[in-house]
Amino acid sequence: MTSARFDVVAIGSAIVDIIARTDDDFIAANGMTKGTMALIDADQSKALYEKLGHAVQVSGGSAANTVAGIASFGGTPAFIGRVGGDRLGDIFAHEIKVAGVHFHGGDGARKAALPSAVCLIMVTPDAQRTMNTYLGACTELGPDDIDGKLLADAHVTYIEGYQWDTPRAKQAIRKACKAARDAGRKVALSLSDPFVVDRHHADLAKLIADDVDLIFGNQEEVFHLFRTETLDEAVAGLRQTNTLACMTLGAKGALVVDGDSTTAVPAAPVSQVVDTTGAGDLFAAGFLYGFTHGRDLVGCAKLGALAAAEIISHMGARPEAKLHDLANKAGI
Amino acid sequence: MTSARFDVVAIGSAIVDIIARTDDDFIAANGMTKGTMALIDADQSKALYEKLGHAVQVSGGSAANTVAGIASFGGTPAFIGRVGGDRLGDIFAHEIKVAGVHFHGGDGARKAALPSAVCLIMVTPDAQRTMNTYLGACTELGPDDIDGKLLADAHVTYIEGYQWDTPRAKQAIRKACKAARDAGRKVALSLSDPFVVDRHHADLAKLIADDVDLIFGNQEEVFHLFRTETLDEAVAGLRQTNTLACMTLGAKGALVVDGDSTTAVPAAPVSQVVDTTGAGDLFAAGFLYGFTHGRDLVGCAKLGALAAAEIISHMGARPEAKLHDLANKAGI
Repeated sequence: MTSARFDVVAIGSAIVDIIARTDDDFIAANGMTKGTMALIDADQSKALYEKLGHAVQVSGGSAANTVAGIASFGGTPAFIGRVGGDRLGDIFAHEIKVAGVHFHGGDGARKAALPSAVCLIMVTPDAQRTMNTYLGACTELGPDDIDGKLLADAHVTYIEGYQWDTPRAKQAIRKACKAARDAGRKVALSLSDPFVVDRHHADLAKLIADDVDLIFGNQEEVFHLFRTETLDEAVAGLRQTNTLACMTLGAKGALVVDGDSTTAVPAAPVSQVVDTTGAGDLFAAGFLYGFTHGRDLVGCAKLGALAAAEIISHMGARPEAKLHDLANKAGI
Repeated sequence: MTSARFDVVAIGSAIVDIIARTDDDFIAANGMTKGTMALIDADQSKALYEKLGHAVQVSGGSAANTVAGIASFGGTPAFIGRVGGDRLGDIFAHEIKVAGVHFHGGDGARKAALPSAVCLIMVTPDAQRTMNTYLGACTELGPDDIDGKLLADAHVTYIEGYQWDTPRAKQAIRKACKAARDAGRKVALSLSDPFVVDRHHADLAKLIADDVDLIFGNQEEVFHLFRTETLDEAVAGLRQTNTLACMTLGAKGALVVDGDSTTAVPAAPVSQVVDTTGAGDLFAAGFLYGFTHGRDLVGCAKLGALAAAEIISHMGARPEAKLHDLANKAGI
């Protein structure tokens, strides 16, 4: 690859997570679908928060978690996103900076008028997470936030599927894809959530056909993308996209689909699964770190599995251990 | 005791803690005195925060930690304090409510104009905490916040020494002491911090002489109160106050001074001391829960030691385990 200042530039929602434990009845009683993300407005956010018990506040955001993971491996990531001029925005910006990520948009001039985004995350006893997001400041992300030079100076531009839920972000993503491709760089897409795939099916299919080189998604997201319920059809669908695609399968590991070759990689061992928030984000982190550092696809997927295992062993979606050290120790 | 709706009403600073690990050099290089609390302004808070690494955000505040502890024992506490109309204020109010504490002042009408307070807490490898507090909204606490009826309906009114650092709070405390005493209730004082004792020495001595029935402080705070460096003189000083006094001694447990009788109670066992933030606050919680539930002084102190042991076994100053269950299990 041509040299670049950054391994990965991610475009994503800048979110602080508010994480509480609930039981399954709470999820059902509040009309949520376990394991998915729903968008809520400020009033709904307030009403739901009042029903929650003890919560902790830590930085999150899907693509932001991914770049924090890449930095923890020793990579050089950047992040494009919008925070508000409030203390939660400061917390997000602080955490992304101390994680070792270049934050484009974290300066005063770019602070949004709306309050910073929060994601209310309910972790059930099975360690599954169900999310309700108030996007706030994130909805102000637009084409002006996309610095073509920055994208040209990164091996991979990484985009959250979640971005399709913020109207102005569509234009931003189109601009980003063009800038990355014009510079001969790769574009990666995270499918984010099965309902996101449903809500923006045509847009995502077109983006994949036109611009995407790497796809990340879990089994349910890929099933929704190809409107299938079988693994064989899902793999066949990914093959036809002519991309390098990773489908994560929870405890069963992941499949890497690369043209005619499909490789299965097992999940890394975890002593106790505490909170699955960020598992997919961190799989992408490990894979992209490996991908931008010349590893073969099995090595990339093993790094992804290692990072996912770390993140599900504790509450919160940012690594607590240094992933670089864990990878060394595991000999990957 | 006459019946009362509340065991304890605490008057304190409503603070969200931002907790980060640092080394000893960081404490020294930033001119801090390890183990103490310093007041900082908004700019200093911003500058210090930028120097910190990864941090977690959890509710704190000394007296607020104490009442959260009392609720965790199954008691009925209330809290008087001021938050700003921002998300950190919402987080403080949420956490105190779900802990089971009645929050007087948490409603919209009483929200302060200034931003909610934060305390930057640096935890060094020896598990000691060093604190820098931006008081913000807390400085708006004044006599209007003191509901005499509420205090008359609580066995104990509990006051932080820290309150002397907020100018209008002095009047509030005078009003509170009068209301409690007029109703035949007890007044308890936490000395809070050795430098607080130095800064407000005459005020605290007068309050103790006029109004205080119970004193809580660690060895250093009591030493500063009586301007001594020996335990014997400290105990003699406490004896002369004609109060029931608890002096905590870290790993050595606590001394309870009650007139001519002095009782030593050992610390409760802890497998690993992680973060000593809140140790004194939770000792007071256990002691006051016992005190308001008819326990003898040794029983009160043992409950204090149990709660302190729980809090220092994890990051943050709010109980993670249900103290009621721990006390049952320990047979206290």
